[in-house]
Amino acid sequence: MGKRQLKLGLVPTGVGGPGQHNRWLDPEIPGDASVDIDWYIDVARQAEAALFDLVFIVDSQFITPHSPPHYLNRLEPLTLLSALAVSTSRIGLVGTLTTSYNAPFNLARRLASLDLISRGRAGWNVVTSGDAGTAGNYSRDKHYDYDTRYGRALESVSVVRGLWRSYEDDAFPRDRASGRFLDPAKLHRLDHRGEHFSVVGPLNIQRSPQGEPVIFQAGDSEQGRDLGAAIADGIFTHAPSIEQGRAFYADVKGRAERLGRDPDRIVVMPGVSITVGDSDADAIEIEQAERRSDHSFEQALTEFGRSFGWHDFTQYDPDAPFPAHTLEFAKSSFFTNARKLTDLATSQNLTLRQTVETTRKHHPGPFVGSAETVASRIVEWFESRALDGLNIHMNHPAQFRRFTGEVVPLLQERGVFRSGYTHETLRGHLGLPVPSNRRVECAA
Amino acid sequence: MGKRQLKLGLVPTGVGGPGQHNRWLDPEIPGDASVDIDWYIDVARQAEAALFDLVFIVDSQFITPHSPPHYLNRLEPLTLLSALAVSTSRIGLVGTLTTSYNAPFNLARRLASLDLISRGRAGWNVVTSGDAGTAGNYSRDKHYDYDTRYGRALESVSVVRGLWRSYEDDAFPRDRASGRFLDPAKLHRLDHRGEHFSVVGPLNIQRSPQGEPVIFQAGDSEQGRDLGAAIADGIFTHAPSIEQGRAFYADVKGRAERLGRDPDRIVVMPGVSITVGDSDADAIEIEQAERRSDHSFEQALTEFGRSFGWHDFTQYDPDAPFPAHTLEFAKSSFFTNARKLTDLATSQNLTLRQTVETTRKHHPGPFVGSAETVASRIVEWFESRALDGLNIHMNHPAQFRRFTGEVVPLLQERGVFRSGYTHETLRGHLGLPVPSNRRVECAA
Repeated sequence: MGKRQLKLGLVPTGVGGPGQHNRWLDPEIPGDASVDIDWYIDVARQAEAALFDLVFIVDSQFITPHSPPHYLNRLEPLTLLSALAVSTSRIGLVGTLTTSYNAPFNLARRLASLDLISRGRAGWNVVTSGDAGTAGNYSRDKHYDYDTRYGRALESVSVVRGLWRSYEDDAFPRDRASGRFLDPAKLHRLDHRGEHFSVVGPLNIQRSPQGEPVIFQAGDSEQGRDLGAAIADGIFTHAPSIEQGRAFYADVKGRAERLGRDPDRIVVMPGVSITVGDSDADAIEIEQAERRSDHSFEQALTEFGRSFGWHDFTQYDPDAPFPAHTLEFAKSSFFTNARKLTDLATSQNLTLRQTVETTRKHHPGPFVGSAETVASRIVEWFESRALDGLNIHMNHPAQFRRFTGEVVPLLQERGVFRSGYTHETLRGHLGLPVPSNRRVECAA
Repeated sequence: MGKRQLKLGLVPTGVGGPGQHNRWLDPEIPGDASVDIDWYIDVARQAEAALFDLVFIVDSQFITPHSPPHYLNRLEPLTLLSALAVSTSRIGLVGTLTTSYNAPFNLARRLASLDLISRGRAGWNVVTSGDAGTAGNYSRDKHYDYDTRYGRALESVSVVRGLWRSYEDDAFPRDRASGRFLDPAKLHRLDHRGEHFSVVGPLNIQRSPQGEPVIFQAGDSEQGRDLGAAIADGIFTHAPSIEQGRAFYADVKGRAERLGRDPDRIVVMPGVSITVGDSDADAIEIEQAERRSDHSFEQALTEFGRSFGWHDFTQYDPDAPFPAHTLEFAKSSFFTNARKLTDLATSQNLTLRQTVETTRKHHPGPFVGSAETVASRIVEWFESRALDGLNIHMNHPAQFRRFTGEVVPLLQERGVFRSGYTHETLRGHLGLPVPSNRRVECAA
């Protein structure tokens, strides 16, 4: 396998991610970047030129007029990735698709198609959708509860993987001399009957050069971690400090090991922001200025409601004690995060304004500094197993250029990052084996 | 609007369409053409170089080991079209998506994404899925019955169009000076509550240069014709003779007119095979040889079952009278076609073999002949309003080159086909107006 290598992903958020209402004011970012395919092609090619492992497309399906710009108007991930597939040649293409509102057969088919179109570079970030309002867009009065969401996710992935194994690798002889196109013994129905889905199969699509797409999972709750440990090739998470990163890393790999999996075959890649300056002080100043301009208190107050099922917090006196009863609105939404905020507010007797301000406060990130500092910090986290790789949120284009131009060469010098692609597929980049789908028939 | 112009679409079926089990034996067709994106890009570019209006991608989601090659292994249409969108610049991109097994919100989103990625060249061929076995891939024991299928289709299209109008055209001022990204008054929820779907909205995606995707519809039953007349911008049909073509054309345009629609804003484009030879006799010979090699009696017998819910006809004595009770298996499948075959068999006292042979018999198509003959025939059908355009099934690559190289120039000479693109969008090519989505608020 060779020496352990750092993985790098790019999360292109265009006009800004969560909490970033005003990034689009940067004149270098097209105002319609989140729906401009040329912009996406350009940044994917930049990431590929810097030898990144993958592009990671996040998603959501529910908006209000108060949503940040990127949410208001965005391309559907797989439609987007398919256009990137023929505009790049090596970089992995990971798309977020929810198991709450997609039939497993459709998921299997679209991802397998992307995998063939990209010649083995597709990945699926499995999510269950945290925005409770999403339910209303899919003929449901209420979002699924936590347990159902995770039950559906687990079963979906199992069905999808089963469908991806409909054809054995050598199912198509396509022999013109004998006129034999298919070997029907190598085509298998699934005949799945489960709690949430029944799927007969087979899937009408052959295997790709990487066998089947790579599975990512994001979600920090107990159920989310169990799901990741059970099904994921890659984990997308958040790591605010090296200690928290190491704890999460050990926890999720331990869970996987207890399920009988090889922990080295799961790559943990937290999503991070990186700010590179001429000096550490310069970088901190850049980051602070950016954060200050990200949103007004009013914008933050509205978006604060997201974890609470988009509950409207403008109805409360911001200077009265935090309305802790609102936690109930979070039940089928981002509950883990909402509970964290509510616990903080009640344990410290905070007002609503003070609670919202904690989400706006400047916590200098770990990856803010000169190129040297950022590279050293990344190597430190990597070597102490707080991460296997990073999913880098693309902030300002100038910052991404500094990362690829100044930090990546240092990571290469220190021997933790490739100096050329050595594989053709995403599975190859990540050091993951091709899953087998051979069937062994036993004589009766 | 200028003179009425012929429309041309390409249906690239790769290794063969329905009934064509052996087309892949042509050494010019890659054995994996149906999943080879480079092959699709190549043929789409050929069609674009010949100034075609659109590429039309058909679909199915159910296979058995006896399915023809193209069905066994095919790319999902929208994933495929998104890759074509960034590999072409003018040609329209029409994908088949079923309303039976896709949520309207997902349909709206994916098609709107393709429409933005292609800068206004997307189209949706609305189908309800005829293969009864498809139900088993989507957690249903039985396929929806005819009325439910068409009810869902009608409601789906209405919801999807409503979602496409979530944002008014000028909803995004994106004014850096004032910091105003969205004009929230120009974002509208849908709040649809119908028989089959409830969808709150809004859709998280802006309008495209053609406003919204073009809607095609295929289906020849009474319900299919009513659906087409009600919702379609374009109709995909079959026209075995000029008389049948004219009758269908008049019928569907009449239905549309009775619904208060402008019949000139529906383009009727039957799917046809075209065979060009050095002379008429040469073309007939080419076509006959092709048909003879398309399938054996055994292959035809198995595929014959498709219209009857993939009923297994190999269980009957082929030389006994046609088993007419099998029509019941067609109820939630391709009933119109199955009934036609059953009626024929019973009225003429045919055996099973004789009935299957009628589907294999050589009926010389109307568009078989020298380039002159084919061009004249097309002009005749066009001028007598048996069609507004043609969706050409790509057979052998050499045949498609003859059509674009020999027939298209004749159509241009006769003034029925463009000699250069005059529009940027599919709606523009087809002479269809951009649908309005302005909302007029009245003072109370």
